[in-house]
Amino acid sequence: MTVNLESQNLILKLWFLIHRDYALLRSCEDQMYGEKGLTMEQYATLVAIKYLNDPVRPTDVARWIGRRTNSVSMMVDRMVKAGLVRRERDRRDRRVVRLIITSKAENALKPATRAGWEFIQKIMSPLSDEDRQTFARLLETLRYQTMNYLNPGEDIEEMVRNDDKSHVNLRGRLVQRGLTFTPQAKHQGEKKRKTV
Amino acid sequence: MTVNLESQNLILKLWFLIHRDYALLRSCEDQMYGEKGLTMEQYATLVAIKYLNDPVRPTDVARWIGRRTNSVSMMVDRMVKAGLVRRERDRRDRRVVRLIITSKAENALKPATRAGWEFIQKIMSPLSDEDRQTFARLLETLRYQTMNYLNPGEDIEEMVRNDDKSHVNLRGRLVQRGLTFTPQAKHQGEKKRKTV
Repeated sequence: MTVNLESQNLILKLWFLIHRDYALLRSCEDQMYGEKGLTMEQYATLVAIKYLNDPVRPTDVARWIGRRTNSVSMMVDRMVKAGLVRRERDRRDRRVVRLIITSKAENALKPATRAGWEFIQKIMSPLSDEDRQTFARLLETLRYQTMNYLNPGEDIEEMVRNDDKSHVNLRGRLVQRGLTFTPQAKHQGEKKRKTV
Repeated sequence: MTVNLESQNLILKLWFLIHRDYALLRSCEDQMYGEKGLTMEQYATLVAIKYLNDPVRPTDVARWIGRRTNSVSMMVDRMVKAGLVRRERDRRDRRVVRLIITSKAENALKPATRAGWEFIQKIMSPLSDEDRQTFARLLETLRYQTMNYLNPGEDIEEMVRNDDKSHVNLRGRLVQRGLTFTPQAKHQGEKKRKTV
């Protein structure tokens, strides 16, 4: 019984930590992208438009950032006004409205991406590669479970494969098109080198 | 060099997974609390008002759920209109406006809490207690790092202790005041019993 209660406390603790960590991570990202003139959601939207497979529609962005399509559409309205995004009819299918990022957004995206990359390296620096692999495995279990909850009876393995594919594609494009992999960010060079 | 690139890919993967998992978890929680007539943020706000130390002000809720105070105030306005929350001057200090939950909100809170508890047990069911402890340790590292990023030069150990204290208090109160710890939720009883 005691063990059982401890186990339940641990589950509650995990739930709190997941929410707490994400709130903190969001604050970090808001601050960091804010310094580059973008909100975190604007940044994620620009990344999606630039690196997902063309044509990128609001519904693709919504799936990517995990929001409802109508809230993405409202955000895109504001980004159009701010000169960051344009809407255009797709030439192959006139019914499709695709999103395009402007040169102003391109100019904001590069330093924001570099700052984001330095940030995430810094945040992950105390974790060894083994820790990171374990972390990824645990997060993958959580992803599977939440997908399963949201899509009962569907082929979750297939959904996971598609999810991984879009990440891998995006990662590849980030590397190709100018996300510089510096040898190490300055601030945690020492610690990191030990683990590599 | 190859190792280094692999290590960088792993960091990027983790970053994607953290965001992806949280978007999925939010969708689950929105759906689950939605079935009980609450948005996830309304639910978190009601929990904060009910279980944090009295008086609970909008700024306390904001810290708890990791939002800005003015966005919490707007949400509270809507919750007042919906008959879920009242604002009241604190008797000990008239300058303080404290938040109080209504009996309508109390009635919504209990089934939502039970549903939430069954949900999180289900989601965590494939993880052994050892996995969960590792997960908590990794999330604690991430919490430390993000707190450190947001509050450079401050006493992060002290912040972590306060953070843990508020979680432990809240956990205690959830148990005391009616969050029923059922032996196990039905659906994953089999799997769970093996790990306990």
